[in-house]
Order: sequence, then C-alpha cells, then structure tokens
Amino acid sequence: MRDPIRILGIDPGLRRTGWGVIETAGSRLSFIACGVIRPDTAMPLGDRLCEIHSRLIDIFATHRPDAAAVEQTFVNKDADATLKLGHARGVALLVPAQAGLPVGEYAPNAVKKAVVGAGHADKRQIRHMIAMLLPKADVGSDDEADALAIAICHAHHSATALRVTGAVA
Amino acid sequence: MRDPIRILGIDPGLRRTGWGVIETAGSRLSFIACGVIRPDTAMPLGDRLCEIHSRLIDIFATHRPDAAAVEQTFVNKDADATLKLGHARGVALLVPAQAGLPVGEYAPNAVKKAVVGAGHADKRQIRHMIAMLLPKADVGSDDEADALAIAICHAHHSATALRVTGAVA
Repeated sequence: MRDPIRILGIDPGLRRTGWGVIETAGSRLSFIACGVIRPDTAMPLGDRLCEIHSRLIDIFATHRPDAAAVEQTFVNKDADATLKLGHARGVALLVPAQAGLPVGEYAPNAVKKAVVGAGHADKRQIRHMIAMLLPKADVGSDDEADALAIAICHAHHSATALRVTGAVA
Repeated sequence: MRDPIRILGIDPGLRRTGWGVIETAGSRLSFIACGVIRPDTAMPLGDRLCEIHSRLIDIFATHRPDAAAVEQTFVNKDADATLKLGHARGVALLVPAQAGLPVGEYAPNAVKKAVVGAGHADKRQIRHMIAMLLPKADVGSDDEADALAIAICHAHHSATALRVTGAVA
C-alpha cells in the first residue's frame, strides 16, 4: 500500500481565502485541518496579498502537503471583481510553485461532481457531503468546505492517474 | 536638498512584465535600469508566476528602490484575459509589500498625462518622451517604456505630495 498523500485545497479570494488539508491513502480520506484567511479589508491591496501569501507559507510549513489544488475560477461578468480574484488566485498559485509542487486546477463542476456526484450542487449539499466524507472535519464556513472539496477532487483525480500509471507500468 | 529617491515602476503581465528603475532628486530624473520578465509560456501557470516573483525579488535586491508603482489595470472585456492579468498583477503588488514599501497605483491616463502631457497618448509618443526625459535609458520594448512611465508618474505625484507636506509643515 502506498504512503498517505497530503493534499492542500485552496479556494482563493481577496476577502476570504479558504484552505483545507486532507490525507488520502488508497480510497480512505482523512481530515487534517482547515481554515480561512481574512485579510483586513482596510489594508492596502499589496498588504492584503502579502497576508494571504505569508499565511499560505505558514500552512505549507505546518502541514507539509505533497500536492496542492486550486479551483479554476468561475469568470465573473464583473471585470473589476474578476481582476481582484485574479490577484488572490495568483498568490494562491504562487505558493505551491515556490514549494516545488505541481498545482491541480479543477473546474467548479468537476469539484462538485467529485464530492456530491453532480455538477450543479449547491453550498448546502457540499457541506453535507464534506461532513459525510470527512466526519472529523470542523468546517466553520463555506470557504473551508469548498477548499476541502477541491482537495477531495484532487485526491480522486490523482487516484485515477495512479491507477492508469500502475496499469501502464 | 533631499536625498535622491529610487522608484521602481512595474507594468505587469503574464507573458511580459516590464520593469524600470529611475532616481529622482528634486526635479531631476535619472535612468537606472529597465528590463522585461518573459516567463516561458510552456511552463505551468504557478511556475510562470514563480518566475515573475523571483525576478522581481532579484530586481529589488539589486536596485533597492525606495518606492514602487504599478499601473491600475485597464479592465479588459475579455474576462479570461482580465483574470490572467490579475494573477501577474497580484504578484507584482505582493513583492513591494513584502519589502515593506507602499505601492502607488496610477490609472493609465494619469501615467500618460505625467509623461506626455495628455491622457490619450499612443505607445510611440510614450517612447519618444521617455527618450527625452531619460536620455540614458536603453529602452528595448514598449513594456520597459511603460514601466519607466509609471515610475515617472509616481515621481511627479510624490514631488507634489512632498511640496504639499512641506507647505503644511
């Protein structure tokens, strides 16, 4: 049996960046930690990005993930909001790359499908399934549930990739 | 007379991030350095952001700017392009904040007005005026010219701010 793999899921945002760490060994999933980074909105933009960056660095140092995954952003019709989201997402993609880890990117539908089994689940369904899949998870917000869902999605896709690799080897 | 102030201007982009450093002492401007960061487009997104980040860190270490300025992005109608630009811009704003420097943000019209005297100048006019204002500048691309223009804009605004502060004190 393979060693457990730790996966960090990140749901980036300038106001709230959700994060969640799970461990996967074969088909078994376990909860490690989750939280939300909420930079003070009164701070200048650069300082808010700096806080997201330094908190993610801390999370990497504490939980030492083997892989990371970020949601492929739903591109908003509001260009200004899209640009702001891009700022936070750029920092969320930067940190795993600095740690030398590849970053999985998954469309929102793929994340919902991996967790709920359907591409059009709502927030309530996602939280319900996170509570089922990770009974020890102490999920205080939708941002944390989304981040854990992204990590679970990556676990499913990695397991598939490993099976395929195993078949070829 | 005040000590000269070094200003780094950044024109962020995922394909090309232009940068330029100038020094300003009173009304005198001098050219220090400029360049373009062009991450390999074949690399994953996180690695491209990582290259922009580490090159900007190097530029900070080499040129030790006292201030930094980034253009307020023209928000594109293409949401996907806006998001990508947001990624690069997030990293460009992060680096000065990590160095503890405030970051000036200027609208494209303000940058053009500071350099050319009109808010609707084209690229050719900007390069022409950069050559006039910074005769020693070795400007190889529009990205470098734009980055130097952003630094000059910040110099003008800082000088105004200093005069205002001086008048109040």
